[in-house]
Amino acid sequence: MGLFTKDIETMDDLFIHQLQDIYYAENQITKALPKMIAKASDPQLRQGFEMHLRETEGQIRRLEKVFEMHGQSPKAVDCPAIDGIIEEADETAGDIADKNVLDAALVASAQAVEHYEITRYGTLIAWAKRLGRDDCASVLQQNLDEEKATDAKLTAMAESSVNRKAA
Amino acid sequence: MGLFTKDIETMDDLFIHQLQDIYYAENQITKALPKMIAKASDPQLRQGFEMHLRETEGQIRRLEKVFEMHGQSPKAVDCPAIDGIIEEADETAGDIADKNVLDAALVASAQAVEHYEITRYGTLIAWAKRLGRDDCASVLQQNLDEEKATDAKLTAMAESSVNRKAA
Repeated sequence: MGLFTKDIETMDDLFIHQLQDIYYAENQITKALPKMIAKASDPQLRQGFEMHLRETEGQIRRLEKVFEMHGQSPKAVDCPAIDGIIEEADETAGDIADKNVLDAALVASAQAVEHYEITRYGTLIAWAKRLGRDDCASVLQQNLDEEKATDAKLTAMAESSVNRKAA
Repeated sequence: MGLFTKDIETMDDLFIHQLQDIYYAENQITKALPKMIAKASDPQLRQGFEMHLRETEGQIRRLEKVFEMHGQSPKAVDCPAIDGIIEEADETAGDIADKNVLDAALVASAQAVEHYEITRYGTLIAWAKRLGRDDCASVLQQNLDEEKATDAKLTAMAESSVNRKAA
């Protein structure tokens, strides 16, 4: 995109572009999570990742609903941000031998993913409201609430057990 | 790193690795912000980016202090996550013709950067405390507080003026 033309002309175009970006990101996350589950040793952490994988599949269905509400077919655009976050998670994990230290790194990587989603959903909700689409905003809010809850659970897990075992 | 050896053996190694990651990220941000300042039209937004550039320079000095407190020389490791976030910001900006829509996209990109920093500093502070380095944690907390304040300012700016002009 964008080599010869400017594809985003209006706020509505920007909203759809951002929706396609997070749709790509959520789909990449469903591919990354099984690898994180396989690497995790702490049973509570593995269970948390498994639960979040099922949650992410539900979030993708909600995004498809928002596309539909907005008269669009679901489409993904490349999202170098999530690709970079996942690449960094893989690289760091590949550098760690100790399974407890690896768990601490996995929590940090998962929280980087959550924060990316939190910022994107926050923006999308603000834009949807500004565009008079409170209906789209309220569906997106459900995804945001889940991401924030996951991030809080990861913090609690890190502080109550994972970091203690790693240190 | 990590092709033939596992470089991260302990939680302390992981802490230093993450410190090198955010040191790289903050340095990349000082290169990205002048481009964002040049693209921004809203005077309040431009001023906000300028202020954050000076703040980022101070955050880099604080990171250098933490390296020193920890008996390490400041060093950066590649951080594909921040590279991806900045690449995505550039690509999206390059696709937008309207200056008000561009401002809305610039706020979203800046908030994606802030959230990356918020998650990394949050992790670093938790790890520093677990390693018994409350002194390092309190220096890192100053950076985290600034990032959170910047994110909140960007939200306020988006909601009070930038998004309204763009829609």
